[in-house]
Amino acid sequence: MYQRKQISNRIFEINMYNRIDLNCDMGESYGACVVGNDPEIMPLISSANIACGFHGGDPGIIHQTIRLAQVHGVSVGAHPSYPDLQGFGRREMQLTPQEVYDGILYQIGAVEAFTRAAGVQMRHVKPHGALYNRAAKDDQMADAIIQAVYYFDNNLWVYGPPGSAMERAAHRIGLKFCREAFVDRTYQSDGSLTPRSNHGSLIHDTAQAIRQVEQILTSGQVTALDGSLVPMECDTFCIHGDGQHAVTFAKALQGSLRSLGFNMQSPITEP
Amino acid sequence: MYQRKQISNRIFEINMYNRIDLNCDMGESYGACVVGNDPEIMPLISSANIACGFHGGDPGIIHQTIRLAQVHGVSVGAHPSYPDLQGFGRREMQLTPQEVYDGILYQIGAVEAFTRAAGVQMRHVKPHGALYNRAAKDDQMADAIIQAVYYFDNNLWVYGPPGSAMERAAHRIGLKFCREAFVDRTYQSDGSLTPRSNHGSLIHDTAQAIRQVEQILTSGQVTALDGSLVPMECDTFCIHGDGQHAVTFAKALQGSLRSLGFNMQSPITEP
Amino acid sequence: MYQRKQISNRIFEINMYNRIDLNCDMGESYGACVVGNDPEIMPLISSANIACGFHGGDPGIIHQTIRLAQVHGVSVGAHPSYPDLQGFGRREMQLTPQEVYDGILYQIGAVEAFTRAAGVQMRHVKPHGALYNRAAKDDQMADAIIQAVYYFDNNLWVYGPPGSAMERAAHRIGLKFCREAFVDRTYQSDGSLTPRSNHGSLIHDTAQAIRQVEQILTSGQVTALDGSLVPMECDTFCIHGDGQHAVTFAKALQGSLRSLGFNMQSPITEP
Amino acid sequence: MYQRKQISNRIFEINMYNRIDLNCDMGESYGACVVGNDPEIMPLISSANIACGFHGGDPGIIHQTIRLAQVHGVSVGAHPSYPDLQGFGRREMQLTPQEVYDGILYQIGAVEAFTRAAGVQMRHVKPHGALYNRAAKDDQMADAIIQAVYYFDNNLWVYGPPGSAMERAAHRIGLKFCREAFVDRTYQSDGSLTPRSNHGSLIHDTAQAIRQVEQILTSGQVTALDGSLVPMECDTFCIHGDGQHAVTFAKALQGSLRSLGFNMQSPITEP
Repeated sequence: MYQRKQISNRIFEINMYNRIDLNCDMGESYGACVVGNDPEIMPLISSANIACGFHGGDPGIIHQTIRLAQVHGVSVGAHPSYPDLQGFGRREMQLTPQEVYDGILYQIGAVEAFTRAAGVQMRHVKPHGALYNRAAKDDQMADAIIQAVYYFDNNLWVYGPPGSAMERAAHRIGLKFCREAFVDRTYQSDGSLTPRSNHGSLIHDTAQAIRQVEQILTSGQVTALDGSLVPMECDTFCIHGDGQHAVTFAKALQGSLRSLGFNMQSPITEP
Repeated sequence: MYQRKQISNRIFEINMYNRIDLNCDMGESYGACVVGNDPEIMPLISSANIACGFHGGDPGIIHQTIRLAQVHGVSVGAHPSYPDLQGFGRREMQLTPQEVYDGILYQIGAVEAFTRAAGVQMRHVKPHGALYNRAAKDDQMADAIIQAVYYFDNNLWVYGPPGSAMERAAHRIGLKFCREAFVDRTYQSDGSLTPRSNHGSLIHDTAQAIRQVEQILTSGQVTALDGSLVPMECDTFCIHGDGQHAVTFAKALQGSLRSLGFNMQSPITEP
Repeated sequence: MYQRKQISNRIFEINMYNRIDLNCDMGESYGACVVGNDPEIMPLISSANIACGFHGGDPGIIHQTIRLAQVHGVSVGAHPSYPDLQGFGRREMQLTPQEVYDGILYQIGAVEAFTRAAGVQMRHVKPHGALYNRAAKDDQMADAIIQAVYYFDNNLWVYGPPGSAMERAAHRIGLKFCREAFVDRTYQSDGSLTPRSNHGSLIHDTAQAIRQVEQILTSGQVTALDGSLVPMECDTFCIHGDGQHAVTFAKALQGSLRSLGFNMQSPITEP
Repeated sequence: MYQRKQISNRIFEINMYNRIDLNCDMGESYGACVVGNDPEIMPLISSANIACGFHGGDPGIIHQTIRLAQVHGVSVGAHPSYPDLQGFGRREMQLTPQEVYDGILYQIGAVEAFTRAAGVQMRHVKPHGALYNRAAKDDQMADAIIQAVYYFDNNLWVYGPPGSAMERAAHRIGLKFCREAFVDRTYQSDGSLTPRSNHGSLIHDTAQAIRQVEQILTSGQVTALDGSLVPMECDTFCIHGDGQHAVTFAKALQGSLRSLGFNMQSPITEP
């Protein structure tokens, strides 16, 4: 059976308990505009990525979402983005590394203020949308993000794709990295996500989503859209809260993970 | 039976056909954030108030909403607001009349560009939220709005509460005014809407909503929240697209209006 | 001597009067933040490109800037941008052609509302910053922009670089195109502007700026940064209002143009 | 001579050194738009109030401004505002106390991220513009602000007018309060600032500005616009960086304070 290994250069944890994290992007509503179904999904996940105001999430939404996470014992992280509310942070923007560094710092500071006032600990940072995709491949951008996180709080985990520029940047500076796979997205033969604009990028069928999770957990591989087998080791699964089937998938996953002997739990920092 | 009279100082129309307009705020989504249920409501109304980007409605949403209105033969108007996306335009802001004038001009111009490119005519302007409430009582603000509309296109109708500062300002300058009553909001004894922050401000029961519409149409009066009878003549009814019951109410209204002998139709400009 | 020819596929004008346009980006301030020196530059130009709110220019600024142009008899155009106030529209964003089309329509409509209320005619559209550069090379983006302008008002001129995708798109649809050269920017050997991030992209010396203008006007060529001669025919010169030397350059140009026998005048639409 | 007393309910400090703070709103530029003259003023003050992005100040500006403060040994604080970039935070907005609390937390967290990454300590919070004026008189708003600051970091100082609702709220919860007077604004007979919209609200004359500072420091009183004497004890003077005369005033103050035996220094937290 697949053995999860924390790949941080600092912490080598033997996973005796077969822990797996389930994370979801939360708090992406803005003003009166609603994205996703936070109250139904929150009880079903272990980590919540809180939108920081740049692609969604105004101060009131951030506050309520952190409170909701707290009620359900869900671990809280920041989910910073390019500054693009109109495009929901899904459009690539040619920012300089300095602009990305500054934008990340601003956003994680803003969200951390709410966790601090609530007496909870912010645990992780996961870039959003186009910035996530850019930082997966672009070493300079990955460094900009990783440095912003590191100089803010070097105990934070960073979430990103396994084998990405993000992972390499985290290792270079000594930041804990949580390798992420997706419940509801398909993969290409190079291990990257099928772009949203392509046919077949989203998984709509519950059985298929569960199969993909179980395959990754038990074999460390995923079947790409073209049928090829791709190595895929992960510490966390992402489920998209704005997806149609988010609640259905998340519910089905509870039983599936249990039956495989996994406990749903956010990444743990050993003292 | 209640006789609708166009109270514009220019156009006195004898309403032989018992026309009544049903309007709804549309296109208030922004980016990936969704407000209301436009595709279901559009076929059930005669006038759509299109959000202009200040409280909701980005350029793509404006475009799609106007196309949707066009498909269903629904009359299109602009729905300008204070610049307050975070607060959905529902928070009073102390703008100067000049700032309001400029903001209105900007917004109706932006929406009109889409109607023009689509080959439809923009027919009306209805201020949104806190600006609507302010302009109902504040003559200076009402004048600022009315002048912006007038200097943009003096064939536009302005929607607002009967007997309001808006109505007086429209008459002063010679702009057609469409008196508005609400399907899903209760009234106070002075004829103003019960504020959203008060208990009982929203009507949740379909039968009650229909009763209020029928009472206004047949008696020219409405029963306020405290039981008093208030004069209420109107040319259009507003239904809130972001309300829980919008679709239910709108469907129920179709039959009710027909049975009273009214045709649902947007205000008409006589040549 | 160099003969200016209007290259629109509609209008072939024999320039008996040696007219040349001098345009400047204006109204790029926002709220209390000031960009450029509009009051000093306005009397020295023939066409003003008015920022539309996406990279600069709030409704009040748009209003004041159009009034200022009107006072000085300066022709008014819209200066739409990517939605990026933080980056002043200078950062490339991966918008779809549809998003660009919608954004352009929104912005030119907003500005046109002010010209209409002021009783002046909007004459042209010039894309800003990163969008200008993108549309110079990308046929799809150029088409998106040109179509938005065309369906809004097919009497408008579009400003862009000579020989660009913008010029080709304008010709395809039948929109008048005004070829633009720059007073204060240097060129590369392929005829494109030296990017702002490169050394030597900006011209700081008045004599050098004037020499570049005179060279283009009298020879139809410009000396690129690497010393090569590049063909450069133009109908308008752009001077950057936020440049340090804008006022100095603009003043020096008045005499220079006169001595060459040119009249400073915005492009003219023959009836 | 006037003896400064710290009026916090926690810290009674005997001011043996005649310390006085000089604070200025800094970092209010946005994107390419410039407000004020930060590089010239920074060396002349002891505390910098950093705009947080809601009325000015994008992430890059915040970063640069904190770096500038650090270079000059200037104490750094956050300068949160209503969310109103267009109106520079100078327009009253009817937010709920909850909305103000959330907005303050968001902004001070965002700025603190930069101080933390830079290895400096954020020392104070001063509300901006319309929010400052509202919180001076409105106990609920003052409580909302003070609580946000307190739950974020109860070692922070809050700046506000002496005798204000802000001061009372700070005392109730046990937060250190720094009483502020103005160098370049006149006062009314009730001790409040003459509103910006009134004639005579701004002081343009250096001698008059210096006289006002000296009067307050030596007599604990200020002469209001109507000639009446008003009590005015303060721990800090504010100079407006966007004022025309900011640099001149700040330079003149250096000598004036020294000649009165005062050291310019930010408020000090006793261990």
